[in-house]
Amino acid sequence: MVNVPTIKLNNGKEIPQVGFGLWKVTEDTATVVYEAIKVGYRLFDGAFDYGNEKEAGAGIKRALDEGIVKREELTIVSKLWNTFHEKERVEPITRQQLEWWGIDYFDIFYMHFPVALQYVDPKDSYPSGWKNLEDKIVQSKATIQETWQEMERLVDIGLAKTIGVSNFQGALLMDLLRYARIRPAILQVEIHPYLSQEPLVEYAKMEGIAVTAYSSFGPQSFVELKWDKAVECPQLFVHPVVTAIAAKHGKTPAQVLLRWSTQRGICVIPKVTMKERMIENLESVTFDLAPEELKAICTLNLNLRFNNPPDYLGSLHIFA
Amino acid sequence: MVNVPTIKLNNGKEIPQVGFGLWKVTEDTATVVYEAIKVGYRLFDGAFDYGNEKEAGAGIKRALDEGIVKREELTIVSKLWNTFHEKERVEPITRQQLEWWGIDYFDIFYMHFPVALQYVDPKDSYPSGWKNLEDKIVQSKATIQETWQEMERLVDIGLAKTIGVSNFQGALLMDLLRYARIRPAILQVEIHPYLSQEPLVEYAKMEGIAVTAYSSFGPQSFVELKWDKAVECPQLFVHPVVTAIAAKHGKTPAQVLLRWSTQRGICVIPKVTMKERMIENLESVTFDLAPEELKAICTLNLNLRFNNPPDYLGSLHIFA
Repeated sequence: MVNVPTIKLNNGKEIPQVGFGLWKVTEDTATVVYEAIKVGYRLFDGAFDYGNEKEAGAGIKRALDEGIVKREELTIVSKLWNTFHEKERVEPITRQQLEWWGIDYFDIFYMHFPVALQYVDPKDSYPSGWKNLEDKIVQSKATIQETWQEMERLVDIGLAKTIGVSNFQGALLMDLLRYARIRPAILQVEIHPYLSQEPLVEYAKMEGIAVTAYSSFGPQSFVELKWDKAVECPQLFVHPVVTAIAAKHGKTPAQVLLRWSTQRGICVIPKVTMKERMIENLESVTFDLAPEELKAICTLNLNLRFNNPPDYLGSLHIFA
Repeated sequence: MVNVPTIKLNNGKEIPQVGFGLWKVTEDTATVVYEAIKVGYRLFDGAFDYGNEKEAGAGIKRALDEGIVKREELTIVSKLWNTFHEKERVEPITRQQLEWWGIDYFDIFYMHFPVALQYVDPKDSYPSGWKNLEDKIVQSKATIQETWQEMERLVDIGLAKTIGVSNFQGALLMDLLRYARIRPAILQVEIHPYLSQEPLVEYAKMEGIAVTAYSSFGPQSFVELKWDKAVECPQLFVHPVVTAIAAKHGKTPAQVLLRWSTQRGICVIPKVTMKERMIENLESVTFDLAPEELKAICTLNLNLRFNNPPDYLGSLHIFA
């Protein structure tokens, strides 16, 4: 089994640099998670919004029951959805999510977006996405500070070992650091060669905050959603810069894209359902890119962001 | 005298779309301001950080004393510097700045940056810039909310008619709107063809917040500071797209660059010290660009930001 390197967070916890992303895992999630554990995955990156926490938990349970892995060897990650930002909503939904997973704490719990939306009862709509029951985007007045303080309380009462933020950028993260009693240990953002985010990665590093890249394969993650922006741009798997480096090392373009991040200290959470690919992604840590290869991939940066809410919602310009 | 169009803010106040920027006006500021009023400028955009508020005030006083203009015809703008973000610092420094100007209220008072730095007494260092007396960048724990609430109090007690924010972006502005008792009426940010910021302008518009562009001439504003990034990129005054449009209209490139913003509802605050140029900039509102010309200039966007603190400070990644 691949020996996946770990990184140490600012609270002393260690997490594997290659994890398994559960976004868009819609079929046989329990089996996918179970198989992923069997091939060596130890970090599972889920979220309320992915709508598959119960199924993911079933896969975890099977592996635990079979003694393949122990709970403490797993890093189970989930996220607070936008509709639960009000202080009285945070603990109840976290407890609900833990119940779905069948566990009693999350190793990492993120604020999914710096967006606060009107509450929607999961019983009425699950996962509810960005719109309320009337199909409208309605913001809530819950501030990031209010929500963060409640997430800190999740740590106090043991429901989360580590808390982090996702889809945050410079000045907002800087503001959070002013009032944080418990500093975020980790930041999860979209990072791939078309959106390399080097200044944000540098900033997080200076602040001792680990970084997890989502959508490491760039447009690939969004082509299946048929988003024009992703369909219309050159796919990274066939990009000549990427394929030339892959060929040179006898690796796949996917492995090169993952290694480009992990070698720079960033964690990755590729999603994959085919078992061969699962192993391939884990094995991306078994070779090193030359410094000039890392740089060559950085030069592909276009500041091209795929997960940009105004593109699919017409509002909520968090990255503007 | 040129009839400068105005825009109406969300608090009902009207301000001229072309104002006069006081950044880097270092010589004869009083005369420059006085002459600018004589040729028709009615908005003066100053700041603690520009270090010339007393001199600017002297120019205003001369024009008022000579009856060239009345106080209520002027829009006097200043900004709260980073070292005064703690709640007990805001009112005293505002009163000090008003005293320098020789006026009893600001028409617009901005939070200059979403950056809170350790207090430095202006008696010890003026303007103190980004570093403390030990030449170090030391952040303060004052949150944006703490500072904004104190700026709201400036409105309550009549020291500022309108308050706004500068150098803010999407998610941080969104967070401020959650707790603002008085919404910001105006946002001042770097905007020029190399940094067109269309999503941010769209977001501000959706929220009813006016936008003022600074550094409308792009690198030009920074070449005099000898910043590599500005020196090394093609100057907009000689950019073929800009010069072709200018020639077609019989206008100067500067006028085209200003009109590109004002025609889209954005305010501009060019700085100029030569009297002929002062008039030329004001007269930029006397012609219209064709929609395809506006678009052609938008396509020059490179997401190239000149006023980016990490470039000159090595930290404070507010735009990352």
